[in-house]
Amino acid sequence: MKQPDCIAKLINKFASLPGVGLKTAQRFAYRVIDMSQSEVDDFCEALADVKSKIHLCAECGNFTENEVCDICLKRDKSVICVVAYPKDVLALDKGGSFKGVYHVLHGTLSPLEGRGADDLNIKSLIKRLDGVKEVIMATNPDVEGEATAAYIARLIKPFGIKVTRLAQGISMGSDIEYADEITLERALEGRTEIN
Amino acid sequence: MKQPDCIAKLINKFASLPGVGLKTAQRFAYRVIDMSQSEVDDFCEALADVKSKIHLCAECGNFTENEVCDICLKRDKSVICVVAYPKDVLALDKGGSFKGVYHVLHGTLSPLEGRGADDLNIKSLIKRLDGVKEVIMATNPDVEGEATAAYIARLIKPFGIKVTRLAQGISMGSDIEYADEITLERALEGRTEIN
Repeated sequence: MKQPDCIAKLINKFASLPGVGLKTAQRFAYRVIDMSQSEVDDFCEALADVKSKIHLCAECGNFTENEVCDICLKRDKSVICVVAYPKDVLALDKGGSFKGVYHVLHGTLSPLEGRGADDLNIKSLIKRLDGVKEVIMATNPDVEGEATAAYIARLIKPFGIKVTRLAQGISMGSDIEYADEITLERALEGRTEIN
Repeated sequence: MKQPDCIAKLINKFASLPGVGLKTAQRFAYRVIDMSQSEVDDFCEALADVKSKIHLCAECGNFTENEVCDICLKRDKSVICVVAYPKDVLALDKGGSFKGVYHVLHGTLSPLEGRGADDLNIKSLIKRLDGVKEVIMATNPDVEGEATAAYIARLIKPFGIKVTRLAQGISMGSDIEYADEITLERALEGRTEIN
């Protein structure tokens, strides 16, 4: 016997979320059945609100409920940290040491997937370079991320602005024994003096 | 800088699902932002539908969209398989070999958590014993499940109905070397002849 249609439909919806299989989706759906009416109403409202209220910041391309996001409104615009996705802003800003603004590309250059420079949020980056002292490239240290960083660096250098890249090396709490050779090589290249 | 309120709210909602932490909830929320408007509408509808359409089958207590569930409508009512939760019906019915009906208790006896016999769907089980030849107790093989099975068996036996328990033993594909001693003891007790 199959499940009631509306449960099966909800399971399918949950299974469309990243990393959720049918078994997990089923647990989620059964949890929803156990929720109170107001909990489910809240959940629906939260889903609908995110879709209707969230759009891209006119300056940096990050998610915001306003015309311009809080970070672009309040922080130092002379340093721009360029990232591939909104989730990278969250990760980088958690530490709280960076006081500048971000710029979200919404992807990386990927010839294989047919993503070129025009598909990324690059033009608006060039437009906001006035008065900028440094652009930090914070794309992932993989082939696409490196290529994207190199491409944008070439675009920006003619403006006479310093372009930097996040340091590469061994992670906090990691084990040198198990680090890969490229990471160790970069950690050696980028070694700093102990004072 | 914190996230926009409506994203934070949706993350909280997702984090209330079983086994979902803040990091995973955040991935889910960002996935929702990337969905099309119609996908989000469908998701909301699926959530609301499950809450409004699903209720308990008048006979067995399982989830259904109708007055009585498909299994109770169409299958052999002379054998009842008693389970603790609706999800157990799904698991047992997947194999397709059981042709009888189910009865969902919605819990097990648990003095520690203050759940007694009156909190379980037991009365309606007693009411449907007319014409029943066998009741299979399919609660989990743990302390609460065993106690619940023993309690219900004591209630049913006076009606002259056979009460059975799911066989216990080693699982398919498991390794005898690593099986625990109680499992092996039960597997020995319940050994069957090879013909």
